[in-house]
Amino acid sequence: MRMRHKPWADDYLAENSDIVIIDPSQYKGKWHSVFGNDNPLHIEVGTGKGQFISGMALKHPDVNYIGIELFKSVIVTAVDKVKQTGAPNVKLLNINANDLSEVFAEGEIERVYLNFSDPWPKKRHEKRRLTNHAFIKKYERVLGGKGAIHFKTDNRGLFEYSLTSFSEYGLVLTFVSLDLHQSDFEGNVMTEYEEKFAAKGQPIYRVEAEWRT
Amino acid sequence: MRMRHKPWADDYLAENSDIVIIDPSQYKGKWHSVFGNDNPLHIEVGTGKGQFISGMALKHPDVNYIGIELFKSVIVTAVDKVKQTGAPNVKLLNINANDLSEVFAEGEIERVYLNFSDPWPKKRHEKRRLTNHAFIKKYERVLGGKGAIHFKTDNRGLFEYSLTSFSEYGLVLTFVSLDLHQSDFEGNVMTEYEEKFAAKGQPIYRVEAEWRT
Repeated sequence: MRMRHKPWADDYLAENSDIVIIDPSQYKGKWHSVFGNDNPLHIEVGTGKGQFISGMALKHPDVNYIGIELFKSVIVTAVDKVKQTGAPNVKLLNINANDLSEVFAEGEIERVYLNFSDPWPKKRHEKRRLTNHAFIKKYERVLGGKGAIHFKTDNRGLFEYSLTSFSEYGLVLTFVSLDLHQSDFEGNVMTEYEEKFAAKGQPIYRVEAEWRT
Repeated sequence: MRMRHKPWADDYLAENSDIVIIDPSQYKGKWHSVFGNDNPLHIEVGTGKGQFISGMALKHPDVNYIGIELFKSVIVTAVDKVKQTGAPNVKLLNINANDLSEVFAEGEIERVYLNFSDPWPKKRHEKRRLTNHAFIKKYERVLGGKGAIHFKTDNRGLFEYSLTSFSEYGLVLTFVSLDLHQSDFEGNVMTEYEEKFAAKGQPIYRVEAEWRT
């Protein structure tokens, strides 16, 4: 992801601590108290500029959403998007995907979204792909070994890799689309990237991978 | 598949009973005796005009191949292809895929190939798709609950369906390509259909689905 130094970002995040939760580990196991209800909690890992999570929050008021984004220079834009929606059911965390278990209790999450994750195409960077087994293990923990991962991307190589990675991990693929925008899938919320790629006529790939108990 | 009545087909198959095995159920559990060795046995369900199975037989002399094709009008062409190769490790059966268990003993097969199977796109025809659960169950039996299905197609809808069908059945997807001819997969043997589609630049989809014990 393109990093640009934005020295004002720290201040901006601090000013918006109603949206970007500061010191989120204090809410581990108690996120329902932040939202003031017991609705299911869905997270997006790598939330980028926030269009997806904002759109989902508006579309599904009975679900709580948390977007996780490592880069301050990017999450500031997501803050603005969330502000614009005025939706009370979406929060953002400026944390690393590696640290999910420090922030969420086992089984506290019901679904994980991954959208247009960095493909890290080189074999030696496989461990950085958000769909590799080490990351699936992290998701599994906060999902409590149930629920699902919903993943979409325009990157063919990453999608091929992810299908086998999910399947070999033991997840069941319950939905696969190899051209989401030409399919009869309803309720799709596009990310910023997705809008650009779709405009070029490139196919978007999407999969739902579930834990079966 | 396009049927054309070829009244001479019966005679032609009878004349070539060294290649098209007559009354194949007599060899159930004893196919090694037909090939005169104990090499692994791979079958192609819906072998069509025989280019794939002939090519594979030439490429892998240590594997025995049996191509299964329902339509006499089509299998006659496969007979010619097999003849041309002169390969001793390939036979053809003019049977229905439903009848696999009448012809092969449990665990007698090590791999099933499906190539460009009829997509049967209408929902009410789902049961005819060679990758539905009823057919997977038939393959499972002759595979003895191990081994793999290797499937390729140009049909996006059938491929999407098949990925979830395999996965929901409990198979593990160990290889997926969404553009076989642009991938680094080696050793691909093209079918007649595949050559046509590839020439148009359309992607070929391929998956390997394995039983894990």
